[in-house]
Amino acid sequence: MPRYKLVIEYDGTPFYGWQRQATHASVQGAIEAAVTRFSGETAGLTCAGRTDTGVHATHQVAHLDLDKTWRTDVVRDALNAHLRPQPVSILSAEIVDSSFNARHSAIRRHYRYRILNRRSPAALDRGRVWHVPWPLDLALMQAAALPLLGRHDFSAFRAAECQAKSPIRTLEQLDVARLPMGFTEEIVVAASARSFLHHQVRGLVGTLVLAGSGRLTPGDVADILASRDRSRCGPLAPSSGLTLVGVDYPDADSTLSS
Amino acid sequence: MPRYKLVIEYDGTPFYGWQRQATHASVQGAIEAAVTRFSGETAGLTCAGRTDTGVHATHQVAHLDLDKTWRTDVVRDALNAHLRPQPVSILSAEIVDSSFNARHSAIRRHYRYRILNRRSPAALDRGRVWHVPWPLDLALMQAAALPLLGRHDFSAFRAAECQAKSPIRTLEQLDVARLPMGFTEEIVVAASARSFLHHQVRGLVGTLVLAGSGRLTPGDVADILASRDRSRCGPLAPSSGLTLVGVDYPDADSTLSS
Repeated sequence: MPRYKLVIEYDGTPFYGWQRQATHASVQGAIEAAVTRFSGETAGLTCAGRTDTGVHATHQVAHLDLDKTWRTDVVRDALNAHLRPQPVSILSAEIVDSSFNARHSAIRRHYRYRILNRRSPAALDRGRVWHVPWPLDLALMQAAALPLLGRHDFSAFRAAECQAKSPIRTLEQLDVARLPMGFTEEIVVAASARSFLHHQVRGLVGTLVLAGSGRLTPGDVADILASRDRSRCGPLAPSSGLTLVGVDYPDADSTLSS
Repeated sequence: MPRYKLVIEYDGTPFYGWQRQATHASVQGAIEAAVTRFSGETAGLTCAGRTDTGVHATHQVAHLDLDKTWRTDVVRDALNAHLRPQPVSILSAEIVDSSFNARHSAIRRHYRYRILNRRSPAALDRGRVWHVPWPLDLALMQAAALPLLGRHDFSAFRAAECQAKSPIRTLEQLDVARLPMGFTEEIVVAASARSFLHHQVRGLVGTLVLAGSGRLTPGDVADILASRDRSRCGPLAPSSGLTLVGVDYPDADSTLSS
């Protein structure tokens, strides 16, 4: 029974998140339906990062088992044909060892959060960015990110419904950069860790934006982290700005995309 | 009677092009309706580049005259409020001399064409790129672009309905570059000229893609140009990949965006 590893891009806008649901469209449900239409088999997908409603991916990774051994380019192309016109694209399919698990074998997840920081609303990137119309101070956001780096109890940045056993996580990267482009100012937050708590990246970005707005000092951010009190975290940044851009596995180069 | 210069971003997908039409949604019609709702005045817009159906802009420029003198940030914000939820965003408004004409004063237009060159379809950038699933040879595209540069009779790349008096244009830039991003290969064509013929950029890109596919040599492309025969031009590249990204005026730095 061969195991297939898929790399997947999707626009999260029309989906109620990754996870299969009885009554709403999900990315997992769309791909599993395409698997059945293509192969006649019913197979469950396991993914590296269960993204929320409206969150995008340029590089989600999932695995599934099928009875039959197919050519991997046939798997990729047939799934894409059956997924049409939904905004989900299988970028690659490969056969992997049955010890590979898209979720448990992953050693690092990479997320990118895009903030459109200008007065005027988004026209071309609507649904891809968080529009913050007031000025953000990049240096303050960068200073506020520093105390969050490393191994901490991230209870203050954890959703009430988070199912992780431990609130301890090691934030390996939390970079804040500005991309100036004509009248457009885009601020990009890049976050990497072995794993994240539910809503952690959106809570971190919401808090960094309060810091960039002058409403929290870097010291306040360190205090919020130390408090482990969810009520002190900044408001969640909207899901539209968040994209899963890469997943790393052992014995492979980083698979960060774009 | 003050004259206002607007810089405008839009997603061309839901519009039948820039130009006002009696029966279909247009970018010009949307902005002129917002002007009337905001100011009570009826004013016609003149733009630098009348984009076709489905073509986008990150930096269109237009002017209009109003009886009243408004604060320019009020003009920008009020138009954006009245344009909502249409994907049109006024990036800036300024008062300019009455000798300024968005169309006739422009000395250079900059277009960017995005080609998604990978097997799998676009999920996140659907409607923003041309998906070409077969491999394109970048060096062949670059070689084919060379004979097109400079001052030529571009009749072979001109739409039948083009209203320009002369088919002579000077193509100042036609750069072809590849952006590798994980599993994604994006090829970007950057084209700049004082002005373009109707459909010229899409005809040029369609022809460059034939060259990159090995179906035309650079010599063939030079022959097509010399023939001035529209029937020999490659198929028009789809409008979705095209974006107007800048317009230059005298006495100002290049206003190329993103």
